[in-house]
Amino acid sequence: MTEVCLPGTGGMVPLPDRWLTCCWIEQQGCAVLIDCGEGTQIALKEADCRLSRLDTLLITHFHADHIAGLPGLLLTLGNSGKTSPLTIIGPEGLNSIVTSLTCIAPALPFPLEILEKDSSHGGEWHINNIKISWLPLNHRIPCFGYSVLYSRKPIFNPQKAAVLGIPKTLYKTLHDGNSVMYNGQLIKPETVLDGQRAPIKICYSTDTLPIEALVEFASGADLLISEGMYGKEEMRRKMTDKMHMLFSDSAKIAKQADVGLLWLTHFSPALTNPDEQLDSARQIFGNTVVAYDGIRANIVK
Amino acid sequence: MTEVCLPGTGGMVPLPDRWLTCCWIEQQGCAVLIDCGEGTQIALKEADCRLSRLDTLLITHFHADHIAGLPGLLLTLGNSGKTSPLTIIGPEGLNSIVTSLTCIAPALPFPLEILEKDSSHGGEWHINNIKISWLPLNHRIPCFGYSVLYSRKPIFNPQKAAVLGIPKTLYKTLHDGNSVMYNGQLIKPETVLDGQRAPIKICYSTDTLPIEALVEFASGADLLISEGMYGKEEMRRKMTDKMHMLFSDSAKIAKQADVGLLWLTHFSPALTNPDEQLDSARQIFGNTVVAYDGIRANIVK
Repeated sequence: MTEVCLPGTGGMVPLPDRWLTCCWIEQQGCAVLIDCGEGTQIALKEADCRLSRLDTLLITHFHADHIAGLPGLLLTLGNSGKTSPLTIIGPEGLNSIVTSLTCIAPALPFPLEILEKDSSHGGEWHINNIKISWLPLNHRIPCFGYSVLYSRKPIFNPQKAAVLGIPKTLYKTLHDGNSVMYNGQLIKPETVLDGQRAPIKICYSTDTLPIEALVEFASGADLLISEGMYGKEEMRRKMTDKMHMLFSDSAKIAKQADVGLLWLTHFSPALTNPDEQLDSARQIFGNTVVAYDGIRANIVK
Repeated sequence: MTEVCLPGTGGMVPLPDRWLTCCWIEQQGCAVLIDCGEGTQIALKEADCRLSRLDTLLITHFHADHIAGLPGLLLTLGNSGKTSPLTIIGPEGLNSIVTSLTCIAPALPFPLEILEKDSSHGGEWHINNIKISWLPLNHRIPCFGYSVLYSRKPIFNPQKAAVLGIPKTLYKTLHDGNSVMYNGQLIKPETVLDGQRAPIKICYSTDTLPIEALVEFASGADLLISEGMYGKEEMRRKMTDKMHMLFSDSAKIAKQADVGLLWLTHFSPALTNPDEQLDSARQIFGNTVVAYDGIRANIVK
């Protein structure tokens, strides 16, 4: 089971009733956090996300509303007893930004593994059963969209195993892809497996103008989390100037990418009731939700 | 009238129900803020402190819970239309810390006037009718206590003015310390004044071990705002190690300094109900209040 939560859904400025946009993804006690603006550590606490489980931090870009909470987050992580490394991935400039911001968090009890990535093209990084991919977006400064893909175990066929008389205590070993010796016979895992399961894919995109490459990048995602600064079409010009998307832009991408579900996020502070604009997205992509702080989903398939 | 507000009262870590310690002092539309940890800009909003009035920012020291909110605060100030300078005062290292933290707030529409002060001794700075003084405290890194002193107009005696037949329209000019010519006579302000009024003095001290110099520094303050990480004496050893004060330490200083009122602040995140420990301070200094987020006082005398 993969859990996804948006502890915050606001853009630009943290508000008393809306934290800044970020995303928490957790599977088997290991968590990925995307972005950490001012207050994200508090938002995580409110949303019951357990900071001690954080292994990987993905930074979309270096506007303050996406990274200003870094030093506080790192210090609180340290106080939570973390000693294992934290991996931070982000566009070029990441080393310098992390160095600068940690001037007030100089002695952490865990190492930082800083993966600064060229923002002229995408890339990917693997850890355990997770593949993290990034795509350069089109914002005022280098900015990445992220896809987090969890591979899943293949389908185990207990009938095939039963025919071979394999005891149930060996099922897990085989299911994990290992061979077993039983009754003098080598049994390979493929003997009892029925092929691959589709991975779980979560895609995150903010801040950007709509770009064609996002469709391929988000293709088939179970969940696309994408920005909607405003809903109304009359904000188009302003948003184009500021290089952000409207609800309808994200809905178009969700439709073309054939995703399972779209969560809109990163609302303008001026948009006090984003839910009122939901129709502008649903007319294009039915399975759209206007997210709110603390929204949570368990992705099972 | 001088308004004082503590938008936050927590130490170390911002919590869902307690912002980090800071202090807002406002008189005649000009405000001084002491410290800005993560989330202080939100705390200010919740406490109805109008950021656009901020002229002066005093930083006690460079632990994250006292300064991590700086870049967000500056950006939001810029978005609020500020173009006049913001003065920032703090201990040595201030230039470097401000430069580092503003790597994510590179283009502000107002200038920063950065007054980095030698932390081996105290000093003072004057703006309009305000005298800001600082005192080196005894913490793990250089740390200042601050005193904000508002001088007040002398006492105007309307009877003296009436005897001289001065029209009421000239009272304000005289009260402001200017002379007037009336009926061919030069009237000096001292002719109609009855001497000086005591200034309004607000004193702020956190984080520190108790030091003797604080008594003189806070002497006669109308309001002393001082840290109380814990109330119980059993926390003495831990607090001495970490170089913080208990409720009773602040109460002793308040008593010796003969202040009007003591507000305790900067509570440990582990101290969920600081009010329960109030007696440990009141036994020493009766006029003690356990502060809470948003506490506010108008100082009139």
